[in-house]
Amino acid sequence: MNRPQRVRTDPDEMRARILEVAEEYFRRVGYQKTSVADIAAELGMSPANIYRFFPSKSAINESICGRVTREIVDLAFSVARTRAPASEKLDRLLMAVHRHNKATLIKEKRTHDMVVAAMEENWPVIKAHVEQLVTIIEGVIREGVEAGEFSVDDPVETARAVKLSFLPFFHPLLIQQCIEQGEDTEANLRVQIRFILKALGAAE
Amino acid sequence: MNRPQRVRTDPDEMRARILEVAEEYFRRVGYQKTSVADIAAELGMSPANIYRFFPSKSAINESICGRVTREIVDLAFSVARTRAPASEKLDRLLMAVHRHNKATLIKEKRTHDMVVAAMEENWPVIKAHVEQLVTIIEGVIREGVEAGEFSVDDPVETARAVKLSFLPFFHPLLIQQCIEQGEDTEANLRVQIRFILKALGAAE
Repeated sequence: MNRPQRVRTDPDEMRARILEVAEEYFRRVGYQKTSVADIAAELGMSPANIYRFFPSKSAINESICGRVTREIVDLAFSVARTRAPASEKLDRLLMAVHRHNKATLIKEKRTHDMVVAAMEENWPVIKAHVEQLVTIIEGVIREGVEAGEFSVDDPVETARAVKLSFLPFFHPLLIQQCIEQGEDTEANLRVQIRFILKALGAAE
Repeated sequence: MNRPQRVRTDPDEMRARILEVAEEYFRRVGYQKTSVADIAAELGMSPANIYRFFPSKSAINESICGRVTREIVDLAFSVARTRAPASEKLDRLLMAVHRHNKATLIKEKRTHDMVVAAMEENWPVIKAHVEQLVTIIEGVIREGVEAGEFSVDDPVETARAVKLSFLPFFHPLLIQQCIEQGEDTEANLRVQIRFILKALGAAE
């Protein structure tokens, strides 16, 4: 009878349980309306106990958003690692990330709120996430240059320019604005990808 | 003694006075915290009197934002009408609009709030404004194509792509985010303009 109790008080297990309950709560009630006391009550513990693991509600959200953003990076990598011409990979990568963000961040309104809160409170997590994506894009650009597909002087600078040109299809608030205006974001992104590929010197 | 009174009740004059007092109030107190009753009190009239001219606070803001956005279009036109190569004009136009937005929307925090409110409440005004800018950009692109400077198949589609690539330097919330992160937006825009000119097929 002792063992299950020891498992329950294992710090990693405890953190995982807090995150699980908090995420469920954020999704159900909304990030802004949830307090650390609510999460503690749901777990049958005191807020002080939660603070032993996470210094704030914002820190809990940081961990949850870390997982959400990890999914996007995994998706980008899965496209970048396929065997295909670099221009095709970049096209599919940007479209896949846009679709994923649109589906998760817009349809799951609560997740959207969590990410927007993270953008305000935990910028380093979001910044690191964007940096990872830029690095994956840079890798695809370098491949294209090596294969003679792209003509690019500075792959680092160019990867950042691709990221900025893609931002209207990546940033949750901008995606939301476009959708509210009834715009066809995927059709717009097709045009934008052609523009980006032209800037990379890809053959049309 | 009659004439000044007649002028004071002239509808155009009345609208102008309401806008002037409202703008002063929005800038001093903030858009969200100002009510139509506040504006009416400042003018020594009843709210009902204001509603004869503007159906809502949002409609007042629409008129004020119309003037703010008009300034930006005038600035873009003033650059577009100079005599210079198209690539140089596009470069100067995007940089001038970015600097203007950064100065007005960020330094004058209250104006920023008014424009953000307009983005939520009066999207058609903002949309029309963006369309005007896209049209001016399209004109410069057409000039560049005619002069053999640019190689572009579809100037309409390309002007939209330029607008989207410029959005991170144009959208008040995105400019604000960049500045809060201590980024050098003008240096970033220099890189982005090089990328845009490359997509237009401009010689480097």
